[in-house]
Amino acid sequence: MAVGESPLPTLHAVPGLRLGTVAAGVRKVGEPDLVVMTLEAGSRMAGVFTRNQFRAAPVRSAEAHLRDDIPRALIINTGNANAGTGPAGERAVDQNCARLASILGCRPTQVIPFSTGVIGELLPAERIDAALPAAVDALSDNGWAAAADGIRTTDTRPKGRSCRVELEAGPVTLTGIAKGSGMIRPDMATMLAYIATDADIDQPLLRNLLRDAVAVSFNRISVDGDTSTNDACALIATGASGSKLSAEADIRRFADALDALCIELAREIVADGEGATRELAVRVTGAGSVAEAERVAFTVAESPLVKTALFAGDPNWGRILAAVGRAGIDDLEVDRVRIHIDDCAIVEGGGLSPDYRESLAAERMAADRVTFRIDLDRGDDEVTVWTCDFSYDYVRINAEYRS
Amino acid sequence: MAVGESPLPTLHAVPGLRLGTVAAGVRKVGEPDLVVMTLEAGSRMAGVFTRNQFRAAPVRSAEAHLRDDIPRALIINTGNANAGTGPAGERAVDQNCARLASILGCRPTQVIPFSTGVIGELLPAERIDAALPAAVDALSDNGWAAAADGIRTTDTRPKGRSCRVELEAGPVTLTGIAKGSGMIRPDMATMLAYIATDADIDQPLLRNLLRDAVAVSFNRISVDGDTSTNDACALIATGASGSKLSAEADIRRFADALDALCIELAREIVADGEGATRELAVRVTGAGSVAEAERVAFTVAESPLVKTALFAGDPNWGRILAAVGRAGIDDLEVDRVRIHIDDCAIVEGGGLSPDYRESLAAERMAADRVTFRIDLDRGDDEVTVWTCDFSYDYVRINAEYRS
Repeated sequence: MAVGESPLPTLHAVPGLRLGTVAAGVRKVGEPDLVVMTLEAGSRMAGVFTRNQFRAAPVRSAEAHLRDDIPRALIINTGNANAGTGPAGERAVDQNCARLASILGCRPTQVIPFSTGVIGELLPAERIDAALPAAVDALSDNGWAAAADGIRTTDTRPKGRSCRVELEAGPVTLTGIAKGSGMIRPDMATMLAYIATDADIDQPLLRNLLRDAVAVSFNRISVDGDTSTNDACALIATGASGSKLSAEADIRRFADALDALCIELAREIVADGEGATRELAVRVTGAGSVAEAERVAFTVAESPLVKTALFAGDPNWGRILAAVGRAGIDDLEVDRVRIHIDDCAIVEGGGLSPDYRESLAAERMAADRVTFRIDLDRGDDEVTVWTCDFSYDYVRINAEYRS
Repeated sequence: MAVGESPLPTLHAVPGLRLGTVAAGVRKVGEPDLVVMTLEAGSRMAGVFTRNQFRAAPVRSAEAHLRDDIPRALIINTGNANAGTGPAGERAVDQNCARLASILGCRPTQVIPFSTGVIGELLPAERIDAALPAAVDALSDNGWAAAADGIRTTDTRPKGRSCRVELEAGPVTLTGIAKGSGMIRPDMATMLAYIATDADIDQPLLRNLLRDAVAVSFNRISVDGDTSTNDACALIATGASGSKLSAEADIRRFADALDALCIELAREIVADGEGATRELAVRVTGAGSVAEAERVAFTVAESPLVKTALFAGDPNWGRILAAVGRAGIDDLEVDRVRIHIDDCAIVEGGGLSPDYRESLAAERMAADRVTFRIDLDRGDDEVTVWTCDFSYDYVRINAEYRS
C-alpha cells in the first residue's frame, strides 16, 4: 500500500551525468536492479552516510573512495545490502568497482558503490560484473526514470523530483531520485537518494548544501524508527551548465530549491512507507531548542499507539498527549501545551480543549495526509517530522520479507 | 492473545491487608472494576509513579497523600484513567477519597487512589461512590485473586505471584498482583502493581527495596515503547507477622525474593502484551555501563522490525544487528560483538557466525519464549530486558480500542 497516487513527474536530464539501468539478477530474475551513473570530468560529489555502527561494506568503501579520489562513476544495486558480510563483502565491492573502472577507463577508487536489500547475504559479484557492460551500453542523459525504478526494494512506486532554478549566474537543473520504504529512520542520511545538478559548485559549498538539506528532509522522517545499515545520500554537481554558484543570492535560491526537493523526496518515502495508508506530519512549535522539538516530534511520530490510531483514523488524542509527556522534557509545563489535528483544537490546559469536536477531529484524522500541530509554548524553535501509519500490512510485509 | 498458559497461582493472604472487589460500572456493566484495600494500623507503604509529564489526577493525588499522611486504604478503578481531565478530574478523585474515608473512619488523605483505562474521559465519581459500600462489605484477607481480576483492562488474564520467605526474624509472606498489556514502557514504575508483605519494614528501607526491585523488573519491560500516564507500583508492609526486617542477611534474602517476584510479574505483563504470541528476553552482556546495556537492549527490544520478525518466527539476524548498530554507542567495535539466539551462534566478527545453522535458529526463534544474547565485549555490565512480538492482533487491538 501507499498513500494516494503519486505518478513519477518528468525528470529533466542533468547535462554531464548519464545513467544506465539493467536487470542483473541480483535477487530476482528479470527485474531492473543495477544502475550505473557516470560523471563528466569536472563534476563534484558530496555524500552523507548512515551512522549505524554496523555499516555495510559498500558504505565504508564509498566513504574511502570519496575521501581519496575524484569520482567518475556510481554503481548501485538493489536486492542485496552487502551488510554484515565481513571481509568477503569487502572483496565483492572491490571486484565490482574494479570491473566497472576497467570498462570506463578510470581508477577503481573513482567508482562509488551503493547497495540496498537483504542484510547478511553475500553480494553476487559475478552476476553484477556480467551485467556491467550492458549497463554501460544503456547509459543515457535521459535514464533518470529507469534508474528510479532500478533502485527500488519494497517500494511500491519510483520516487523522483526535478526542477529548474533561474540563478543570476544562469539557469540550472536539479533532479533527484530516492528509494526507501522500511527500516527508515535515517541518521545523517537517507536510505538511498541521488540528487544531481549541472550548476558549478565548489566542493566545500556542495558538502554544506547537502548537509543542510538532509538535516531538514531525510533526517526528519521515520517509517519504523529503524536506522538502516546502508543509508546514503549523494549530491552531484556536474558544472556542465557553466553557471557558477557563488553570489550570496544564488546560493540561497539554490539551497531553497534543494531543500524543497529533498523534503518532497523524503515525504515520498514516508508516503510509500511499508503498509502506509496515511501520511502524518508532526509539527512541533514553541520549543526551547531544535533538539527538544525533534525529540517531541519523533516520540509522537514513532509511537506505535499513535500510529495504529492513525491507521484506524481515530483522533485518539490521549495517545498523542501521553507521547508528548514521555518525550523526556523534565520541566515541561503541561498546562501550556496546545495540540491541534490540522485545524481542530484538541488539547489545552492539561486536558481536552473546550473547542474540541469529535466528528470534525475524526474527519481530519481519516484524511490521506494528517498534520499534528503541537505547541509547547516555551521557546521559538520548531521542527516538522514526517511519518506514516502502522497497519496490518506493515506486520505482513515485515513478517514475510527477510530484510 | 497471550504467550502460553499462565493460570493464576495460589495467592497467600498477607495478614494486616484486606481486599474487596466489586463491579461499579465504570466503563462496562457487570464486570469487576473497583478494588478497595485496607491496611491495619502500623502498616507502611512506598510507591513509585510514572515519569510521564502528563500525569493523571490520581497519580498526583496519590503522591501527595503518601507524602503528607499515613495510608490506611487504597482505591483502584479500571476502565477510566482519569488522565488529561484537568481540574474536574482532580475533583473526582477527591470526592471518591472522601467518600471511602467517611465509610472507613479515616482522613481522605489516608486514601491512596489509582486509576487505569481510557485517557481523557471524566471519571464517573458518582458510580464509584455508589459502589464503595459494597466493596468495603466484600473486604477479605483472601481477596487477592478477585483483585487481580478487578484491575485488568486489555489484559487477557489476571497476574499474581506469591511466596513465603524464611527470615532469621521469622517467616513472612510476599504477595503481589499487576495489570498491564499495552502502553507499556514503564519509567520508574509499571502500569499498576501492588505487592504486600506482613514483614515489619522501616519506611526508608521499604522505599529502597521497592526502588531497587522496580529497577530490575518493571523498568526493564516494554510492549510498545509507550509510557503510560498512570503507571504506579506500590509496596506495602503490614508488619503483622511481627518479623522485623533489620539483619543484613534478612534484608538481602527479602530483597532477592522481592526482586524475583517483581521480575515474574513484569514478565507476566509482557507475556500478556497486546497481541503477543512470543516473549522475548534481550540479554546484553559485556557492556561498558548499565546505561549502555539498557540502551542496546531496549533498542533491540523496541525495534518494530525485530518484533515483526519474532512474530514470523524468522531468525532475521540482520535486523538484530542493525538495531545494535543504531543504539547510539559511538565507539562500538562491531567486530567484537557476538549475538546468540538462545544457544545458537548468529553473529561474530561483523558478520554471520561460521557456526550458524539456519534450521536450528529458526526452531529457536519459533519457541514461545526466545532469548537474544548480545555480548558487546567491552566491559562487565549486563542487563536483561523483556518484550513481546508485534502481531496483526497488536494492530487490531489498538486500531479498535480507544486507550
